[in-house]
Amino acid sequence: MLVIGEKINASNRSVGEAITNRDREFVENLARDQAAAGADFIDVNAGQETAAMEWLVEAVQAATDRPLAIDSNTPHVIEAALHKYRGERLIINSVTAEPAKIDSIAPLVVKHQAWLVALAMGEGGIPDNVEQRLDACELIMTRLNRLGVAAEQVLFDPLVLPIAVDSSQGLVTLKTIEQIKYRYPAARTVMGLSNISYGLPNRELINRAFFLMAASAGLDAVILDPLDAKIMGLVKVADMLTGSDPYCKAYIRAYRRGTLAD
Amino acid sequence: MLVIGEKINASNRSVGEAITNRDREFVENLARDQAAAGADFIDVNAGQETAAMEWLVEAVQAATDRPLAIDSNTPHVIEAALHKYRGERLIINSVTAEPAKIDSIAPLVVKHQAWLVALAMGEGGIPDNVEQRLDACELIMTRLNRLGVAAEQVLFDPLVLPIAVDSSQGLVTLKTIEQIKYRYPAARTVMGLSNISYGLPNRELINRAFFLMAASAGLDAVILDPLDAKIMGLVKVADMLTGSDPYCKAYIRAYRRGTLAD
Repeated sequence: MLVIGEKINASNRSVGEAITNRDREFVENLARDQAAAGADFIDVNAGQETAAMEWLVEAVQAATDRPLAIDSNTPHVIEAALHKYRGERLIINSVTAEPAKIDSIAPLVVKHQAWLVALAMGEGGIPDNVEQRLDACELIMTRLNRLGVAAEQVLFDPLVLPIAVDSSQGLVTLKTIEQIKYRYPAARTVMGLSNISYGLPNRELINRAFFLMAASAGLDAVILDPLDAKIMGLVKVADMLTGSDPYCKAYIRAYRRGTLAD
Repeated sequence: MLVIGEKINASNRSVGEAITNRDREFVENLARDQAAAGADFIDVNAGQETAAMEWLVEAVQAATDRPLAIDSNTPHVIEAALHKYRGERLIINSVTAEPAKIDSIAPLVVKHQAWLVALAMGEGGIPDNVEQRLDACELIMTRLNRLGVAAEQVLFDPLVLPIAVDSSQGLVTLKTIEQIKYRYPAARTVMGLSNISYGLPNRELINRAFFLMAASAGLDAVILDPLDAKIMGLVKVADMLTGSDPYCKAYIRAYRRGTLAD
C-alpha cells in the first residue's frame, strides 16, 4: 500500500495561513514529519494561486526527498508546480472525466512520466452508483490512452460519499474498486478516507474500518495523515493480510519498533 | 452480522474446570455476560463427555434465553445436548465434508430445523487453497440437500490458516467467502477470528482487521468474545459500512450508549 501524506493542504486553516505567510519552517516540518512517519509521497496543495504553489513545491523539496503529489484541479497551477519540481517520481492529483481537463493535463503527464490521479466522476459531481463511476473511468482511460498515457500511470479514485446520507455508499465504493481492478489490471486505485464518515461521531473508527475493507477490495494507495499512528499501523496489517508482506517481516519490524498502535 | 459468543468452551482452562466441577454460577455468569454484551447465540462446548454437555446446556439455558450453538464434533454428544435443549432457534456446530458425519448429523438438523455450521474441509485437514475448500463445501451441500437440509440452514465456515505460516492465507479465506456467497446465495458464512494471527504479536489488532475484511467479503456471522468491546464496536461499524444499518441507527445508538470503543 502506497501512502500519500495529506497534511500539506491549503484547505486546512493553519496550513493555509502558513502558505499565505510563506512560513517555510512550518511546511518543512510538516513535510519532514510525514516522511519520517512513512509517507511514500507528500501531497502539496496550495490553493488556487500559482505563486503559492511554486513557493510550496520549493519549500517541501528543501525538507524531504520524498516524491510529491502535485494537488490542484487547475492545469496552469500544476504546470507551474512542475517547473519547480526536481524529483523523478511524481503524482499529478487530479483529473476528472472532463475532456478539456484531460486534454490539458495529459501532455504534462506524458512529459514528466508522471502518475495521474483520475477521479471516477464527470462534471455532474460524484455519481451515487457504480455504473456511472465506471463510465467516468472508461472515458478517462480511453482519452488518456489516446493522448499517450499508459494504464500503468493511472491511479483511479473510486470516490466516497458519506454513509450517513446513503447506507449503500460503502458498498458502492468497494465494488467500484473491485471493478476498476478487474477492468484495468495495470492501473492502480487510490482513495482518501474521511468522506465515508462525514456527519457521524467517532469518525476515525469508521475511517480505519473502511480503509481495511478497501484494502481487501484491492486499494493500492491511500491518502491519509501519516502522523496518525493507528492508521499507519493498519497499513502494515492490511499489507500483511492481503499477501503483500512475505513472512510478515514489515509487520514484525513495525511491532518491534513500537510503531504498531493498538 | 450475527454474533456467536465463544466463551463457554471446555478448551479454555477455567471453563473446563468449571464444567468438571459443575460450577453453575461460573457458566451462568459467562452466559449472562455474553448475552448482555449483545451475543445473538451462545456457543456451548463441553468437551467429549455427554453428561458434561447435558449439564452445560441446562445451566446455560437457566441463565439466558439466547439461542445456543451446540458445539461438538461428536454426533452423540450433539444428540444428547438436543434432548436437553428447549429453545427454538439452534445452531449445530459443526460438520465437515466426511459423508459418515454428515449422515449422522443431518437427521438432527432436519428434526430440529437447526442451522448447521459446515467446515470447508474434509478428513485431510484444512486445505491451503480456495478450490479444495470449495470442493468440500460442494460435497457437504449436495449431501445435505439430499438428506433434506436446505441451503438456508447452512453456515459455511471458510476456515483460516495462520498468515505467519503462509502469506497468501488471508486472501485464500476471503476469496473462499466470496465464492461461497456466489455459489450458494441462500447459505450463510461464519468464521472464528483468532487463527489468522497465530504466532504473531499484537494478535487482537490483526484479528480485528481481518474481521473487517471478511465482513466486506460477505461474512454473515462471527464467532468471537462478545466481552471484547473493541470487536463488538467493529461489528456495528461493519454492519453500517456494508449497508446493513439503514440511517446508521444502530451505530449511533451504540455511540450514545458509550459502547463504541475506539
